[in-house]
Amino acid sequence: MIGLERLSLNQATVKHLTLEQAVALCVRHGIPAIGLWRDRVAEAGLARAASVVRSAGLHVSSLCRGGFFTRGASALADNRAAVIEAAELGADTLVLVCGGLGPGRRDLGLARRIVADAIGELVPVAQRLGVRLGIEPMHPMFCADRSVISSLGEAADLAATFPADTVGVVVDTYHVWWDARLAADLARCGGRIAGFQVCDWVLPLPADTLLGRGHLLDGVIDFGPVAAAVTAAGYRGYVEVEIFNAEVWDAPADQTAATVRARFAAALGEVGTGAGARADGEVGTGAGARADGGAGAG
Amino acid sequence: MIGLERLSLNQATVKHLTLEQAVALCVRHGIPAIGLWRDRVAEAGLARAASVVRSAGLHVSSLCRGGFFTRGASALADNRAAVIEAAELGADTLVLVCGGLGPGRRDLGLARRIVADAIGELVPVAQRLGVRLGIEPMHPMFCADRSVISSLGEAADLAATFPADTVGVVVDTYHVWWDARLAADLARCGGRIAGFQVCDWVLPLPADTLLGRGHLLDGVIDFGPVAAAVTAAGYRGYVEVEIFNAEVWDAPADQTAATVRARFAAALGEVGTGAGARADGEVGTGAGARADGGAGAG
Repeated sequence: MIGLERLSLNQATVKHLTLEQAVALCVRHGIPAIGLWRDRVAEAGLARAASVVRSAGLHVSSLCRGGFFTRGASALADNRAAVIEAAELGADTLVLVCGGLGPGRRDLGLARRIVADAIGELVPVAQRLGVRLGIEPMHPMFCADRSVISSLGEAADLAATFPADTVGVVVDTYHVWWDARLAADLARCGGRIAGFQVCDWVLPLPADTLLGRGHLLDGVIDFGPVAAAVTAAGYRGYVEVEIFNAEVWDAPADQTAATVRARFAAALGEVGTGAGARADGEVGTGAGARADGGAGAG
Repeated sequence: MIGLERLSLNQATVKHLTLEQAVALCVRHGIPAIGLWRDRVAEAGLARAASVVRSAGLHVSSLCRGGFFTRGASALADNRAAVIEAAELGADTLVLVCGGLGPGRRDLGLARRIVADAIGELVPVAQRLGVRLGIEPMHPMFCADRSVISSLGEAADLAATFPADTVGVVVDTYHVWWDARLAADLARCGGRIAGFQVCDWVLPLPADTLLGRGHLLDGVIDFGPVAAAVTAAGYRGYVEVEIFNAEVWDAPADQTAATVRARFAAALGEVGTGAGARADGEVGTGAGARADGGAGAG
């Protein structure tokens, strides 16, 4: 059972809102935490952003994002700045999207070493400022251009080379749901889970695969087992709903927030009760799971 | 070093050709083997297809494809027919694309059990006819709708529950290149590798992600290490070039065949010599690897 008191709205779900607007939205809908994005923080100004969030009584579950370590020499400076911002905002985690192969490169092993070395350089900065870094494995379809860390197991192995209170992993259902080793890899994460993000995998994938995410229960992901495994691994933090989807972005923000709350309760509210997260009554009706293009019932 | 004597052209690379045309193309270009597709075999007629290929002196490296076990009750009958066709054609392997979650379903574990059970039912048929089944893990982006077997390790674990001479795995660079565990999983495959297919991962992904494949060296995959690991695992069979790409399909077939041969030699011809498969001179020029959207040099 993950209750609504652990719901966090990731700002990317309401991409068109300013930080102030997103904060106000959370307050209106009784959402107790928010995941912030650096561009919107910069737009508001760091000090003002921290003040707005604090005054509203919101918890900052994450700052998105650092990483892209394979893009070259400027990456470290940018990541140092991100750590400072995360500290100022009191974010639970600075999410790291580690970067792809790098321009003109094909050597995955090299890219992974660059990522590991860069995190090693960032760790003392994070320790000094009390910020926790969260390595987010991305779906393997982003391996070339966004993250050479493509599975939870790989992220866990990498995190394990650093102190647990400074480097953890971020579990996003969209990126890891397919993995046959997920349950086993979550089990060995123990206290390493630094963040948990949820959204659904919707078919068919859109032209821009970055945007193929949906509200919980609009797609094929079985959230119950993942949430149960994350919980069993000891994670008690906020659960962010983070949806990259052009239609969701264009919907009225209050409607989005209401849907986020309702689906969160339906998909995660029963975790651990044995009933799972099916909400089968809803699945058959409209936007429910239709793998293989099949119409109708399973 | 994988020489051109081990090159096979998968029919899907020249999708618009009939079986007879594809066979003639291979003969014209000195390509000694072909991977056949069932729709084109059916179009030609099974007996005639077998005769055409045999008369041309071509080896049949695979028949594509069986599988889709999660689509329901008709799957087994269709797979039995595919085994009979593979036997008649003398194909080295019947490639199995195992199927996605199934209509309206979200339970990955259930889908994987259905796949395992169905292969178990198919094994006696394959043994009786002397056909080898090749489980092809597909890229995780196809987990929902095409194959719940999403990594080589998972395919190897599944294959290991059946006799090695009847069930192996098919390694396709497009599907497995991203996997940090690939080298270790290939090493434990030993004699289980029943097929090896190559094509490149080209950025950006097209709207239909099924078609995001390119000629070798047009994308980001480092073929040398994969081919070396496949070779080290004992695989000595044909290497199929299989490219799903609308532009490749629309190109003149003789041009495609010539490019297939030239790129195969450049990407795989040096495997094991220590020089790797970079062909760096070519990479910087035009269609070479440009991860992260970076222009120019690395």
